[in-house]
Amino acid sequence: MTHFETELQSLKERLLVMASRAEASVAHAMEALVQRDDDAARRVREEDDAIDQLEKEIDDHAIRLLAKAPLATQLRLIVTTLKIARDLERVGDEATTIARRSLELSQEPQLKPYVDLPRMAVLARGMLNDALEAFVARDPGRAREVIPRDREVDALNKQLYRELASFMIEKPSNITRCLNLMTISKALERIADHAKNVAEDVVYLYEGRDIRHGGA
Amino acid sequence: MTHFETELQSLKERLLVMASRAEASVAHAMEALVQRDDDAARRVREEDDAIDQLEKEIDDHAIRLLAKAPLATQLRLIVTTLKIARDLERVGDEATTIARRSLELSQEPQLKPYVDLPRMAVLARGMLNDALEAFVARDPGRAREVIPRDREVDALNKQLYRELASFMIEKPSNITRCLNLMTISKALERIADHAKNVAEDVVYLYEGRDIRHGGA
Repeated sequence: MTHFETELQSLKERLLVMASRAEASVAHAMEALVQRDDDAARRVREEDDAIDQLEKEIDDHAIRLLAKAPLATQLRLIVTTLKIARDLERVGDEATTIARRSLELSQEPQLKPYVDLPRMAVLARGMLNDALEAFVARDPGRAREVIPRDREVDALNKQLYRELASFMIEKPSNITRCLNLMTISKALERIADHAKNVAEDVVYLYEGRDIRHGGA
Repeated sequence: MTHFETELQSLKERLLVMASRAEASVAHAMEALVQRDDDAARRVREEDDAIDQLEKEIDDHAIRLLAKAPLATQLRLIVTTLKIARDLERVGDEATTIARRSLELSQEPQLKPYVDLPRMAVLARGMLNDALEAFVARDPGRAREVIPRDREVDALNKQLYRELASFMIEKPSNITRCLNLMTISKALERIADHAKNVAEDVVYLYEGRDIRHGGA
């Protein structure tokens, strides 16, 4: 392996560290919600700082590598890494939103048992994980399978939105809690969206076709 | 000017076209809301496709230029262009959200005159415009001035959120409309956020210091 390839390998590894941090942060935010664990919520905020820091390091590293006249395929890998890092940074932001709303929710009695939200979180985390594994395995087929799963999370979000809106109308004292739950649902929907973006970037990287924005 | 510099110039111009499209799209989405103009709302959706297409073209162009072993400063300019294009693409998405919710709102009587939302839109569009002008003028000082203006939009969004939540509690028949307005307010807050990201990228580009995530 050349020095450049070793450097590229270390960039990829740094991205994987960032991804596992972002994924863990979503898991902790959901613990904060489901187990009403305020310490977990506060931990998410600290984790977000670490994730932000990782993005900066990855950006700097990527720009240094781009300056060394990489081959065309290496160049695409580096640009994809930059893009994925930005999506992961946003996943950390969404986890922070979930944690903040969970802190507010834990100050009041629980409205109802949480069923759909944990399911959405499992789906979104699975998408993120599979998209990153496809990146490492250089497997665009696997990345491609991630993309349609976003629709399932979208559908759950829409269904929950309608349910919570009805809940509000039935009983206005539920409104504050329902708004917090809607925001959490939307944050999970956005995390799945970011996972879909990552998957699309991985397909583009290894197949050279841009499938974003419906361009099949 | 060398051939490479001409190419770089044309990349920057393409980005400016994309920015003015994204900004116009926000303006049209607000027209759809304020003037209850459903045609304007539908136009925003078409504009979003054009904005998405521009992002793809800019990405391809940027990657081609990166392959030509640019100088360090050119390299940073190209990477920044990639980042800004991604933010502008998201601005287009948020404009689409505003347009969609405006279509729903125009089916019911207007809840109250819109004051804060147009104000937020003016602020957000101004931030976007100034950040892009700072990019063209290579003026990090001007970009720096954009950043704190995000707080004003954040404050308006929070205030509106509270007002709308009270409205819902007072009169549950307002709930659907209030939820639509909350989503629009949040979309404007995110547009200002993207403008702030662009401004931070411009500062980084010309000062070489990363001021994202509070790293002053």
